[in-house]
Amino acid sequence: MKRNLYIGIDGGATKTKVRIEDADGCLLTEAQSGPGTIRTNVSKAWYAIIDGIQTALHKIDLDLYDQTHHYHVGLGLAGTEVAESCEEFLSQAHPFASIALKSDAYTACLGAHQGKEGGIIIIGTGTIGLKIEKGVVTTVGGWGFPHDDEGSGAWLGMEAIRLTLESIDHRREPSDFSKAIFRHFKKDLDHMVTWSNQALPTHFAELAPIVVEYVKRKNPDAIHLVERAGVAIARTYDALVKQSTLPKLPVSLLGGLSHSIEPWLPKRIRTRCKPPQGDATQGAILMIKKSEGFIV
Amino acid sequence: MKRNLYIGIDGGATKTKVRIEDADGCLLTEAQSGPGTIRTNVSKAWYAIIDGIQTALHKIDLDLYDQTHHYHVGLGLAGTEVAESCEEFLSQAHPFASIALKSDAYTACLGAHQGKEGGIIIIGTGTIGLKIEKGVVTTVGGWGFPHDDEGSGAWLGMEAIRLTLESIDHRREPSDFSKAIFRHFKKDLDHMVTWSNQALPTHFAELAPIVVEYVKRKNPDAIHLVERAGVAIARTYDALVKQSTLPKLPVSLLGGLSHSIEPWLPKRIRTRCKPPQGDATQGAILMIKKSEGFIV
Repeated sequence: MKRNLYIGIDGGATKTKVRIEDADGCLLTEAQSGPGTIRTNVSKAWYAIIDGIQTALHKIDLDLYDQTHHYHVGLGLAGTEVAESCEEFLSQAHPFASIALKSDAYTACLGAHQGKEGGIIIIGTGTIGLKIEKGVVTTVGGWGFPHDDEGSGAWLGMEAIRLTLESIDHRREPSDFSKAIFRHFKKDLDHMVTWSNQALPTHFAELAPIVVEYVKRKNPDAIHLVERAGVAIARTYDALVKQSTLPKLPVSLLGGLSHSIEPWLPKRIRTRCKPPQGDATQGAILMIKKSEGFIV
Repeated sequence: MKRNLYIGIDGGATKTKVRIEDADGCLLTEAQSGPGTIRTNVSKAWYAIIDGIQTALHKIDLDLYDQTHHYHVGLGLAGTEVAESCEEFLSQAHPFASIALKSDAYTACLGAHQGKEGGIIIIGTGTIGLKIEKGVVTTVGGWGFPHDDEGSGAWLGMEAIRLTLESIDHRREPSDFSKAIFRHFKKDLDHMVTWSNQALPTHFAELAPIVVEYVKRKNPDAIHLVERAGVAIARTYDALVKQSTLPKLPVSLLGGLSHSIEPWLPKRIRTRCKPPQGDATQGAILMIKKSEGFIV
């Protein structure tokens, strides 16, 4: 009889994370590979996923194509809001015994609350709020950039460019922060403008660490940006809670920028947020085990 | 001896306007054709320009390829901030006796002040401030969307989408305005989100008339947007004036949205703005006449 292994995939805009557990929930191996979002390129995402799984399996002397194992894969991928991408993804041939696909936000929520009811707000390149209650998923935000995603890394980077351009053409006073952004482009205005006109959300998000750095240095321009981000995230939080039937919906803040924005949230929210109990790869494993009937 | 005719071109993101004058400055004919911006497609812009000129000439029984005329063309085109596009444009073979190329904002400023010193603020799909003093050009804004162009039609449309999405997922209260935007998309959220994720600045700007309509209906959400646009335009105005050596820099507001935003500018600005004396095609003719030494 074949042995069942459970693979959790967290596929985002910049990287794919892989976690492999046995039937008892013991971690066997982990790995990382390239971008796993299906928003733009489904084949590239599949390649990154297969590549990451192979890397993880080789660490424990297994192979995706051996005949001694059943591999069950839970996939939490960015870009699942694009219906055609999901269809295309699921229509591909694959070597797995079973697969289940949801958004990376969904599996992050499952992981954060170990499959129990609760909500999350992810503050990364983009930002989204999501809660799961009685199996029903509710999302707030995450509709895309630049018309949504306020408070995200992409938004912080775009606003940093905006105020730097304004300081260059005399619409506002320059500050140490706007000067630092300009230095990032080697004080080459043509370069900065061309870059901005072609920048994807992930590119704008690369500037977020400069914002965070100048918040630490108490620069008023940078502080004003994280204050605005805090207001946006607070509204996402309130929208999740407003739609909840739980007296105290547990909410976790996730994503690379969550620690930088958290201090700028109202105290009532800061004191209510709880640390995540697991990550999106663990959530993806919970999902595939559930969909295969191994857990209820 | 060949007769000299002067052609002024105003090439924007949505259309190209053509004006043809004789050496005495008498208007002979006018026409319009497709988009004349060189930001994305130089050949398409050349095609629109040639097409528009032919249409105008045929109205007065002339042809671009007859041998009895010298055609001198002043071109004010959107997209000239992209250096490669300018080079590519100017490297094309053409049937004209002479050409001169500058941005559509530059020729609009020449036209507005009949070649004299002054400034303009264009509030259209995008927004830019520009002044010409002693032959020196100074620009404010116009660095591109979404990281600049605050207060423009594209920006108004993007912000309209933002608050509509927020009203749908419970981050803010719905209003008649957000409902009107949603109705524009036939209340189809998937459609609205897909459209937004693919929208170019010109597409977002198509929503600006709905904003203007709901400002007239005194909707607080719509009013808040034009108030913010007014603040952005006021900063552009102040940046132009700050960099001027003239005691009273004459400034004209131009562009399809200028009349909608003007009431939301501070009174000190409203009373200082003066109506344009001519349009960008007239400015383009002034430019080519000047570059050919016919006027100083």
